[in-house]
Amino acid sequence: MRPRALAVSGRGLVDPAEPVLAADDEGFTRGRAAFETLRVYGGRPFRLAQHLERLRRSASILGVEPPPAGEIEELVELALDAAELPDAALRLYWTPGPPGGKPFGLVFVSPVPDTFEPLRAHGLRLASLEVPRRQQPWLLPGSKSVSYAVNMAVEAEAKRRGADDAVFVDEAGIVLEGPTTNIWWRRDDVLLTPSLTLGILAGETRASMLELAGPCRFRVEEGEYPLQALLDAEEIFTTSSLREVMPVVQVDGRPFPRGHAAASLQAALRREAGAG
Amino acid sequence: MRPRALAVSGRGLVDPAEPVLAADDEGFTRGRAAFETLRVYGGRPFRLAQHLERLRRSASILGVEPPPAGEIEELVELALDAAELPDAALRLYWTPGPPGGKPFGLVFVSPVPDTFEPLRAHGLRLASLEVPRRQQPWLLPGSKSVSYAVNMAVEAEAKRRGADDAVFVDEAGIVLEGPTTNIWWRRDDVLLTPSLTLGILAGETRASMLELAGPCRFRVEEGEYPLQALLDAEEIFTTSSLREVMPVVQVDGRPFPRGHAAASLQAALRREAGAG
Repeated sequence: MRPRALAVSGRGLVDPAEPVLAADDEGFTRGRAAFETLRVYGGRPFRLAQHLERLRRSASILGVEPPPAGEIEELVELALDAAELPDAALRLYWTPGPPGGKPFGLVFVSPVPDTFEPLRAHGLRLASLEVPRRQQPWLLPGSKSVSYAVNMAVEAEAKRRGADDAVFVDEAGIVLEGPTTNIWWRRDDVLLTPSLTLGILAGETRASMLELAGPCRFRVEEGEYPLQALLDAEEIFTTSSLREVMPVVQVDGRPFPRGHAAASLQAALRREAGAG
Repeated sequence: MRPRALAVSGRGLVDPAEPVLAADDEGFTRGRAAFETLRVYGGRPFRLAQHLERLRRSASILGVEPPPAGEIEELVELALDAAELPDAALRLYWTPGPPGGKPFGLVFVSPVPDTFEPLRAHGLRLASLEVPRRQQPWLLPGSKSVSYAVNMAVEAEAKRRGADDAVFVDEAGIVLEGPTTNIWWRRDDVLLTPSLTLGILAGETRASMLELAGPCRFRVEEGEYPLQALLDAEEIFTTSSLREVMPVVQVDGRPFPRGHAAASLQAALRREAGAG
């Protein structure tokens, strides 16, 4: 499915089917573009300022001059106006352009995939997969770049194992994150989630959870946990900007019950976003 | 510097400055394009068949339908004819296109950077940097994808350390490869190089070395070696398609002498390629 609307720096609205990137753009040839994915509720992008801040941070980690203030915001407005989709997926890219060229932004708006609500109703099946921890700065911890081939391969491997998505553990068996999600689990009234010091991505929905946990009467503990801690949970869920709070019903074939935390946090997130 | 000539599947020759990729091409948004870089000597691409074979293998590892027979070859011919550069750098990309779209190829021809011969005359300074080994299939060992942001960050880190390039060691201190090179060293008449079983890239110039070592009166040993084995070498060199055989004169600030192996293998490579 092509995006419903596309806006590009210096060009404004462009037909989403029209080529906009040169063959030697380093976003393409070197995977050096930064990106963000977020959700639009009732026409308003949720946590846009925070996503823009992370886009700037990713660009800087990738050695790309970050977007000038206001530039991406303007593209967002253009694309949202043109798309006429009150509930939508919004994607922001900031690419360095050809060698010696000028970085520029691409913003596109697409319908939210209609597979998400059936998946939320059914619950996610996860496969645990070992990946290396991103500790050293040259492994680009905490950045979101289009160098995403491994994340895509991981999703394919999870599907080969009969699961919907993956949860990463490092060589020592410490739980990290998913290819496009953060992972959470509950024991009594404590929500546990891997610490950002593990080199994982600081998800914006993860940040929302930290804010919403208290009002929902949960306590949050961030740390380094072995896979067994996850497997001992009373309930498990993932968070991501597009898929929001997703209950997990299986890890490596072992069943887990749905719980009240995922349900109440999803409801709180929707309230916070001003959505239905 | 823009490429001198660009050829694109279904379009033929295109002005290299003209946009050719849609914003939602998964080569861009997901880093799922396969690529190859090779050298053209006297108008003839060196080891083209082998590079095309690896491009097909990378595409298949990335879950992208590989190029139909003859398609990339045709683009190569078009681009080489148009570029009129007898000695050149040739880059082949095979990108999946937008979701649900058809994969296509991009081939560009550029002058060989004029920094290479001064660098060969001076000798390379390397910095050793720890990176995780790519063992599991979902880490895409042996594939060459445009998800290259870490390789670029590693080059930047090496430069920050006063070096020209990096050599990777894994968490256990085992020598792997460089971000765009294979690494070799010599003791007496034995050339040592890390084994492909370590998940490193099977370089085409590495393959040339395996063929040329015997005629140059060296024996080759492939294996798992700690960094200390490299540091105990009598001489060190890197190999890559564009930069060919590059003598190493420093690793982590420690000086190394130039040796006769790098010099004679570079000469043999040039003879093999039919170049001057």
